[in-house]
Amino acid sequence: MIENVVIIGSGNLATQLALALTGKGIQVKQVFSRTLDSAKELAQKVNAEFTNDLSGLMTDADLYIISVKDSAIEEVLQNLSLNKNCLIVHTAGSISMDILSRYTNNYGVFYPLQSFSKSRKANFSKIPICIEANNTSSLQKLQDLAETLSPSVQLVDSDQRKNLHLAAVFVNNFVNHLYVIGSEILQDKNLNFNLLKPMILETALKVESLSPIVAQTGPAIRNDQSVIGAQLKLLQKFPEFQKIYSFVTESIYHIHQKQPNDLL
Amino acid sequence: MIENVVIIGSGNLATQLALALTGKGIQVKQVFSRTLDSAKELAQKVNAEFTNDLSGLMTDADLYIISVKDSAIEEVLQNLSLNKNCLIVHTAGSISMDILSRYTNNYGVFYPLQSFSKSRKANFSKIPICIEANNTSSLQKLQDLAETLSPSVQLVDSDQRKNLHLAAVFVNNFVNHLYVIGSEILQDKNLNFNLLKPMILETALKVESLSPIVAQTGPAIRNDQSVIGAQLKLLQKFPEFQKIYSFVTESIYHIHQKQPNDLL
Repeated sequence: MIENVVIIGSGNLATQLALALTGKGIQVKQVFSRTLDSAKELAQKVNAEFTNDLSGLMTDADLYIISVKDSAIEEVLQNLSLNKNCLIVHTAGSISMDILSRYTNNYGVFYPLQSFSKSRKANFSKIPICIEANNTSSLQKLQDLAETLSPSVQLVDSDQRKNLHLAAVFVNNFVNHLYVIGSEILQDKNLNFNLLKPMILETALKVESLSPIVAQTGPAIRNDQSVIGAQLKLLQKFPEFQKIYSFVTESIYHIHQKQPNDLL
Repeated sequence: MIENVVIIGSGNLATQLALALTGKGIQVKQVFSRTLDSAKELAQKVNAEFTNDLSGLMTDADLYIISVKDSAIEEVLQNLSLNKNCLIVHTAGSISMDILSRYTNNYGVFYPLQSFSKSRKANFSKIPICIEANNTSSLQKLQDLAETLSPSVQLVDSDQRKNLHLAAVFVNNFVNHLYVIGSEILQDKNLNFNLLKPMILETALKVESLSPIVAQTGPAIRNDQSVIGAQLKLLQKFPEFQKIYSFVTESIYHIHQKQPNDLL
């Protein structure tokens, strides 16, 4: 059973995870960050020790959570000096579990599927946690830990997780960029972004109960060339947005052509 | 003061508007639809008469609301036989107010900015209503009517409204398509779309309080070529999604390059 952890990293996910674990009575013993100030800032929030020296990590934690940017994981691993039976996980969507195999006998992945900010408190009871491990006892420990945080714990292998992360890029990063485009179009006409907020929320709420393919509306699915043509023209001063408009419009039309009628 | 209306159309917006007006004590006297059954279906919900004959419209309503698809507006207008002082509006984002000028002396636009379904009851108290009219007295009437439905009533001219509609296509239709893409990617790996729902909602909620340009995260804004390359490869079996991925990724990177640092 995992009663305490060391958190390696102090970014958005590391921060929210440390706060959530502490809230559930799991002790964060120590926080590592390359920047001592960042380590200290997070450590103080969860009443932990802190360090910027990987070789100085406590060696007796039940779990080591590596939550740093993807490209820094390997370097962190190379600099750890833990015993070979320590349980180590990373939290990265796009990185295989196997990256950990050379460094310990017990490893896995702990991937909460949400977009985290330092400033917005994450509600883990609404966040699916995707876990994977290289052996049953590690998996059981991670599952128990995940279940203390969230009712939605999923066993997800590395290939599935990469695809989840890819889907997340579409529904989070790319969706947010469409919000940016909307706000740029409005700003150009002195209109307030607030006007779009009810629609943004409704669009997200609609797919809680309807599948997105059924929820689709608009000129693209109707292949309404007069609106599409006029809107492409309105976008003349935003050539990149115009390109996105064309490709997404085409893609909407094609995917709905492919659907059997009873889905629409 | 507008005490009663005739609704021309029986689609999603016509339906929700008829219900909302009735709920506020504005009488829907009559519903027109080309299909008599559709006219009847909506008319029964709001205790109105119905017709599929434009020349048989009641001539004494305070307001005529044309809520049909864009391409059908002109044809509806040509077949009306109302007196020249009737107040007529359309509800279309992309159509100029001037389309109405040949048919009456009092006209305008009544454009609720939301995505409507027949089956989801619209909450007009959360929906911005954009209005425009060709004279002050018509504008005042439309404003009073809009204010009975919503606290957010905006005077928006035809050019602004077209841009609002364009922005709405991005933040509603296109966003929904990204949800479709997310669900296709998951389906291909036997993963449930439910996994993405908390993230979808959080992404929408985040821009209630943060501007979208500040809320952006992910591999594109970091120009993380190793993740971007791997994700493009994962998309090999979905060439259209791959194209969208590339263009949106580029656009995210470029727009953030252009922002002054203090915005980020």
